[in-house]
Amino acid sequence: MTDTGSPSPSRRSLLGWGGAGLAIGAAAAGGAVAMARTEDDSEPAGSAIAFHGPRQAGIATPVQDRLHFAAFDVTTDDRDAFVRLLKDWTAAARRMTAGHAVGEGAYGGLAEAPPDDTGEALGLKPSRLTLTIGFGPSLFEKFDLTDRRPEALVDLPKFAGDNLDKNRSGGDLCIQACADDPQVAVHAVRNLARIGFGKVVIRWSQLGFGKTSSTTPEAQTPRNLMGFKDGTRNIAGTETDRLKKFVWVDGKDGPPWMEGGSYLVARRIRMHIETWDRTSLQEQEDIFGRDKGEGAPVGKAKERDEPFLKAMKPDAHVRLAHPDTNHGATILRRGYSFTDGTDGLGRLDAGLFFLAYQRDVREGFIPIQRSLAADALNEYIQHVGSALFAIPPGVRDQDDWWGRTLFSKEA
Amino acid sequence: MTDTGSPSPSRRSLLGWGGAGLAIGAAAAGGAVAMARTEDDSEPAGSAIAFHGPRQAGIATPVQDRLHFAAFDVTTDDRDAFVRLLKDWTAAARRMTAGHAVGEGAYGGLAEAPPDDTGEALGLKPSRLTLTIGFGPSLFEKFDLTDRRPEALVDLPKFAGDNLDKNRSGGDLCIQACADDPQVAVHAVRNLARIGFGKVVIRWSQLGFGKTSSTTPEAQTPRNLMGFKDGTRNIAGTETDRLKKFVWVDGKDGPPWMEGGSYLVARRIRMHIETWDRTSLQEQEDIFGRDKGEGAPVGKAKERDEPFLKAMKPDAHVRLAHPDTNHGATILRRGYSFTDGTDGLGRLDAGLFFLAYQRDVREGFIPIQRSLAADALNEYIQHVGSALFAIPPGVRDQDDWWGRTLFSKEA
Repeated sequence: MTDTGSPSPSRRSLLGWGGAGLAIGAAAAGGAVAMARTEDDSEPAGSAIAFHGPRQAGIATPVQDRLHFAAFDVTTDDRDAFVRLLKDWTAAARRMTAGHAVGEGAYGGLAEAPPDDTGEALGLKPSRLTLTIGFGPSLFEKFDLTDRRPEALVDLPKFAGDNLDKNRSGGDLCIQACADDPQVAVHAVRNLARIGFGKVVIRWSQLGFGKTSSTTPEAQTPRNLMGFKDGTRNIAGTETDRLKKFVWVDGKDGPPWMEGGSYLVARRIRMHIETWDRTSLQEQEDIFGRDKGEGAPVGKAKERDEPFLKAMKPDAHVRLAHPDTNHGATILRRGYSFTDGTDGLGRLDAGLFFLAYQRDVREGFIPIQRSLAADALNEYIQHVGSALFAIPPGVRDQDDWWGRTLFSKEA
Repeated sequence: MTDTGSPSPSRRSLLGWGGAGLAIGAAAAGGAVAMARTEDDSEPAGSAIAFHGPRQAGIATPVQDRLHFAAFDVTTDDRDAFVRLLKDWTAAARRMTAGHAVGEGAYGGLAEAPPDDTGEALGLKPSRLTLTIGFGPSLFEKFDLTDRRPEALVDLPKFAGDNLDKNRSGGDLCIQACADDPQVAVHAVRNLARIGFGKVVIRWSQLGFGKTSSTTPEAQTPRNLMGFKDGTRNIAGTETDRLKKFVWVDGKDGPPWMEGGSYLVARRIRMHIETWDRTSLQEQEDIFGRDKGEGAPVGKAKERDEPFLKAMKPDAHVRLAHPDTNHGATILRRGYSFTDGTDGLGRLDAGLFFLAYQRDVREGFIPIQRSLAADALNEYIQHVGSALFAIPPGVRDQDDWWGRTLFSKEA
């Protein structure tokens, strides 16, 4: 047997030992500028995104290539135990986003104990991992916090065409893990689930293999599985004014614990791609209100040219989703394409895992989705999963933890 | 409406128009050396792997990061129609592996017709895409080719512990799509399925997010979801002698149409990762017969050090899988990790999609898997899907097509 106390070092595990203090210090120092990052998505995939900051990373920070999203249900009614879990999770997230294993040392030391880290990301780079936590409406019931439930954390209404599977909907809380290496994202969710054993259980989870949105203005909008660019005028991480107006919860919005937070809508949107693929190019372009090659709005030349809505058919997707059609409603999109095998009828179970951040869903997703009831695209898609989460503010420093402003007695 | 006849060019679509002849010529010229590639897996992800050659790419060529695997059932009994499909598929595969859209021009021209390509890979690089076709035992029944069915294409026996789901098993044929960008792999399978509409239907499919094997000797073996390196002495793409001995079908093996081909075993192996994660490090290492950090066999220092089997427990995985335990049985592994959401009981549906190539399963997978009946690992894994395919030889040139040696009347 090799000496398990001194396994061969990899870059990741080395940082996990000697370099930990230094690296965490650097991350903390970088925290304040985390949301002002301007790097293109093509930045080297190995780098780390600062975990500390006034807002959580994974929202306005550059969109990574891969996603593992998990919704959890809380199985304990012991508030103190749950708060301890939030603190343990924060410590683990701080380490993993910096590219370290969860425990001190590669496996937490004792050969007689289960490892502190499951190990499959050992040797891999930080891969711009971000971990973002959110709290669902049901959490406030479970811990008798209904007086602190934000007004904006509504129960989403039923929308036209919804065909929601409860096993892919809701959840007391969520973790969004994004990274350029899917193994790093899967590792992070798995280790948080492992740490939460006996207190939380995964309700549903979703892997996203390709980003469909960008928060970096210089990058082209990635194509969705319909072959189109959608959401080309997404809010960029550098657009401080639009972020302030449409994404971040302000002090006066209330409740105070949500200041610097946001709201996340997650929708699993199945695409009937086989039917779509038999539709003519002209009809596809009419439905979106864009050309397929460049992604330009009808009559325009470039994907980011200002659309002339009246040139589009009345039921065109771009027209119905546009802020001008919806009293200015604007969301930050961060969705991913998924393909989850086959549906038993010979069709790929594929589509868009739609993730949208906004300051208030009542002025963001809800009016937009209501407008989309008339969308010509609805013949080819179906919403099959849905959840809404309050995204608390960021973890400010080494002593702070996820959810402190909600759960701390001093807060 | 923009002029759909001249969409804005991207790198991919540009090649698809003016550069097509040139690029295909280059690919054809490179075909003969495709299997002798020695580049490390870390080679720039944008490059193309030659499609033409005496053997199919995607076996001994360097392992890419992502997988989309699909098993199809044939729904036509018209042999000529099926042969036409194989030719159409070959033409599409030739274009897609070179980084082009399926049709000439980005969408095949007419706005009134469905596009020749679904478009979601437009602008993406070739990403080392390989497409590998295989024929299952049932195909030989369907087209009255039982006299040409290879003896080595046996019906796999039931193995101890098998818990096979027929909806994740079998198939008349398979396509293995590997690429460094999952969108490129998904795009390829989807377009082949689209082209096959009315003749084939997807029986099951599997996304693999992370490779667990390497065919490049200089690369470290990637970790599986148990956090271990497994199959560290995999056959390298440069080991011509071992490939000849263990992977490629020889003329004297028979039947003649399989010369230069191979046999592929696909097994979906679910890992009970939550149970595994609560097992001590010592026990995990005893079960594998390796240390977790470096991946070295018991008592050794480095992952590729020759194992001393008697130092391991009798039921250690390495010991039971080793050629010395199985009369020399050796396979080329090309498996991928998967995570397909949640199983309804709060556990991740995660594991290893095991892919193994060999010259004869009766001297490869079957004896190894029988030996593994005693594997200590079996407490933590379960085989839930299974399929075996005959992998025909490569497509030699522009005029050749997948399966010609089996289906051509001259062959």
